[in-house]
Amino acid sequence: MWLKNTWYIAAFEHEFDQPLVARRLLDVPIIMYRTSDGSYAALEDVCPHRLLPLSCGKRVDDEIQCGYHGMRFSSEGKCTEVPGQQQIPAAACVTTYPITAMYGLIWIWLGSRELADPSLIPDLHWHDDPGWTCSRGYHHVQADFRLMNDNLLDLSHETYVHNKTIGNGEEETIASYPLTVTTEADSVVRAHREMSNIEAPPFFAMILGHQGAIDRWQTAINFVSGLNITVATVCPVGVGRDQASISYVMHLLTPETENSTHYFWANVRNYRLEDTELTETIRQAVLATFDEDKTVLEEQQRQIETRNAVVPRVAIRLDEAPLRARRLLDGHVKAEAANSEHVVRPVPLVRDMHEASAQGR
Amino acid sequence: MWLKNTWYIAAFEHEFDQPLVARRLLDVPIIMYRTSDGSYAALEDVCPHRLLPLSCGKRVDDEIQCGYHGMRFSSEGKCTEVPGQQQIPAAACVTTYPITAMYGLIWIWLGSRELADPSLIPDLHWHDDPGWTCSRGYHHVQADFRLMNDNLLDLSHETYVHNKTIGNGEEETIASYPLTVTTEADSVVRAHREMSNIEAPPFFAMILGHQGAIDRWQTAINFVSGLNITVATVCPVGVGRDQASISYVMHLLTPETENSTHYFWANVRNYRLEDTELTETIRQAVLATFDEDKTVLEEQQRQIETRNAVVPRVAIRLDEAPLRARRLLDGHVKAEAANSEHVVRPVPLVRDMHEASAQGR
Amino acid sequence: MWLKNTWYIAAFEHEFDQPLVARRLLDVPIIMYRTSDGSYAALEDVCPHRLLPLSCGKRVDDEIQCGYHGMRFSSEGKCTEVPGQQQIPAAACVTTYPITAMYGLIWIWLGSRELADPSLIPDLHWHDDPGWTCSRGYHHVQADFRLMNDNLLDLSHETYVHNKTIGNGEEETIASYPLTVTTEADSVVRAHREMSNIEAPPFFAMILGHQGAIDRWQTAINFVSGLNITVATVCPVGVGRDQASISYVMHLLTPETENSTHYFWANVRNYRLEDTELTETIRQAVLATFDEDKTVLEEQQRQIETRNAVVPRVAIRLDEAPLRARRLLDGHVKAEAANSEHVVRPVPLVRDMHEASAQGR
Repeated sequence: MWLKNTWYIAAFEHEFDQPLVARRLLDVPIIMYRTSDGSYAALEDVCPHRLLPLSCGKRVDDEIQCGYHGMRFSSEGKCTEVPGQQQIPAAACVTTYPITAMYGLIWIWLGSRELADPSLIPDLHWHDDPGWTCSRGYHHVQADFRLMNDNLLDLSHETYVHNKTIGNGEEETIASYPLTVTTEADSVVRAHREMSNIEAPPFFAMILGHQGAIDRWQTAINFVSGLNITVATVCPVGVGRDQASISYVMHLLTPETENSTHYFWANVRNYRLEDTELTETIRQAVLATFDEDKTVLEEQQRQIETRNAVVPRVAIRLDEAPLRARRLLDGHVKAEAANSEHVVRPVPLVRDMHEASAQGR
Repeated sequence: MWLKNTWYIAAFEHEFDQPLVARRLLDVPIIMYRTSDGSYAALEDVCPHRLLPLSCGKRVDDEIQCGYHGMRFSSEGKCTEVPGQQQIPAAACVTTYPITAMYGLIWIWLGSRELADPSLIPDLHWHDDPGWTCSRGYHHVQADFRLMNDNLLDLSHETYVHNKTIGNGEEETIASYPLTVTTEADSVVRAHREMSNIEAPPFFAMILGHQGAIDRWQTAINFVSGLNITVATVCPVGVGRDQASISYVMHLLTPETENSTHYFWANVRNYRLEDTELTETIRQAVLATFDEDKTVLEEQQRQIETRNAVVPRVAIRLDEAPLRARRLLDGHVKAEAANSEHVVRPVPLVRDMHEASAQGR
Repeated sequence: MWLKNTWYIAAFEHEFDQPLVARRLLDVPIIMYRTSDGSYAALEDVCPHRLLPLSCGKRVDDEIQCGYHGMRFSSEGKCTEVPGQQQIPAAACVTTYPITAMYGLIWIWLGSRELADPSLIPDLHWHDDPGWTCSRGYHHVQADFRLMNDNLLDLSHETYVHNKTIGNGEEETIASYPLTVTTEADSVVRAHREMSNIEAPPFFAMILGHQGAIDRWQTAINFVSGLNITVATVCPVGVGRDQASISYVMHLLTPETENSTHYFWANVRNYRLEDTELTETIRQAVLATFDEDKTVLEEQQRQIETRNAVVPRVAIRLDEAPLRARRLLDGHVKAEAANSEHVVRPVPLVRDMHEASAQGR
């Protein structure tokens, strides 16, 4: 059910201020750390001796020492020391995984290791680009990541789930505005919607410092299997598009298990870049918003498990983008099953300047 | 295992002061509400689109709006609105169930809908009869409802489980008094016992305001599948039966799942009708008493599950009424399996004036 | 997987200050008590009527009364009273188990009852011998008892798991000292190690009141299936062995279920016998130390269950004693399966005066 030959987000880079980061990814327990030369290491989080997670042990220089009997392992997964004996058993080694840092994010490859080409990492440079300011966070969500893709590709739910933050009110329900759905390169789905002259939802009134009507555009973008960007553009009515406030909201999803997901998120903006108070305010607002999604998604997951069901049970027009993305994903999973060397080449995710209105700020 | 063609208690009527009442009944999640014309609606608690429970949404006039994408459903389960499109998909409907109010109780029918005849509702008029005063409450019990029928049809357990409230002490153990068990109309079991000149258990001493010896009669009544009444009559020794204090304790059981039960209970009395402090005191005393039952029943349920066992493993004489009721229930379940139009006609549950000593108060 | 024809520890004798002691042993729920003649009774903890645990009832003289309907059972498991009837059903009896007190410990036999010979109880007289002073306690550990035997037979883990209490530091890692492993009588494994002129670990510095170098000897002893003694001997360098401080740490393991264990422990010492403050200090220190083991063992158990694995996955030299003990245990389990009269005769566990340096204190 999962695409294996692709780069998944394993962590934010800043998490490696701590010596060890442990996380289950695609149902594999992983222990990660940054070595003294600045590179990254990812090992299966288990001692081959008695199966204690290595994360119960400790860092010793660039190695990990098991917390039970003191066996040590290098960043290449080789056992370098067995207390009480000179010879190292050949089987005393730990599986490693390709891992690398890019854009302030840590990427891991859980598929065929010889295919782990860093050029396959899609461009998310805004995450640590000095021309943008980032508010970031993490949610653990007890739901299949595909339900989260569905959620992110149909933003009409903002009216009902997020009516206190980013949703238009029911008088101007988001679903009532025309939606354009496109597919590109067999790997990207975009759903674009323009909403002119609407009342500013609370979050946007706050960031614009403006209570009246606004123009609003949004594009939901999904790259298989779980990298999503919401391009959110707003400006007061009458102000030129070239002065719009633009946010790219990245929703970077990595399956933890079949029914749980690591949700790494980041809101980057092109305005009031130095305003650290705004950065924190946005972080708290996004956190509260995604808490609302988490509640709905986890309830939906429970229903699906209880009923052993598939969603949508009845499809509506708003399911077009979610269904396209599921078909693309299914296609790649099948292609990978048929051809173990199958990989997905990235394309620019924010393709169209018009989407972002970024041309002339 | 459950009788389907019968009316179950879904709620107390007073619960509908809130806009929506959600509850799992016979393993079906149900959402209920009272419409503006005073009638009741019961729908399966699930949106046909993405399976979110409708109870996560909200009431909009006489409809329910899903909390995820705003689809709306009428009290007949018809979809009336799909945001983002004009046409309503034919499959976008929700199952409904017959539901009606009677005696201050809300009754639901989960069997063949064409058989849902309100005249099949047994007479429980005391629940909201001005000639009686009611103390009511609810327990969720993690046990098969049949264990609860067993419990209610063998009141000898009062001596051991309820020795601090309604049980006779071990010197006058309830089991030592003769018991008469009768079956009627293939649907009602009654177990009657008279205990003369006994020490007043604490609860009865309290309601009588009397510390000395009392005469006590009790009849446990079960109507298939889970409607129970305990007729409890007490008076000080020497006082005429026509002045006895009578309580009907209704134990109205509706299966939630195979191993959990909704226990709606009501103690109605024919004395000190205006004494609201007594009403509250009785409510608290009954609540504490049924807490004791809950502890025993849930432990029994755990044992049965752990051991995959059937009870009673060894039958004793006191099991006569419980076993009769189980046989009646099994018979009706089988009859229903053989004949989908099988229903159980109610008979008067408190048949005999002598039981209740109500003739001349 | 369990040896049945052997005496297991069911409780400390002092626990019987309370009227009833209930505990699951080898997956059998047991209720135990001391009768008025000072002997002990052990019954299956279940009423044959409706399966309520007898431990939900109460002691009435030398009998147990069920807390549901008041049936009573003697210490021989015979039903002596059924409220509401004169005749006792023949099936209304409860299984009993041989149980006896020895050395301040309560021993139970869950195998063939005719083989339950108290002379098969191994000598643990130090537990209540006036020549020794005891600090004792209990841990519930959510792990297979065999993982605990493994842990106790390879004390090299002290360096890593117990570095704050009883472990040598990594400069003098316990694993680096020669180990002698011996097997005796097909039922006992011993692993002996001498560490001369080492820095005193915190616990030993505390009990010796000495900060400098010490000599340390330790012997890990396992008697099938779960009786372990650690002989721990320490003295300041230059002090004669005959003045060494000796502790026998008893780790008495009884399976609760396949993946949980009752861990009864006792530290007996031959020094400062009257120092009750030291007795308490040792109790707290041992408790903290075994908390550390519990953490590791429960994590290891989770890994084994998640991975459906066997340990050690890769064996190292330090596994020699644990693997020998597992082979002995497997052998006796197979012997018992082949011959229902198979029993294991005990041998003296602390065999060698030299181990304990006890000869001339």
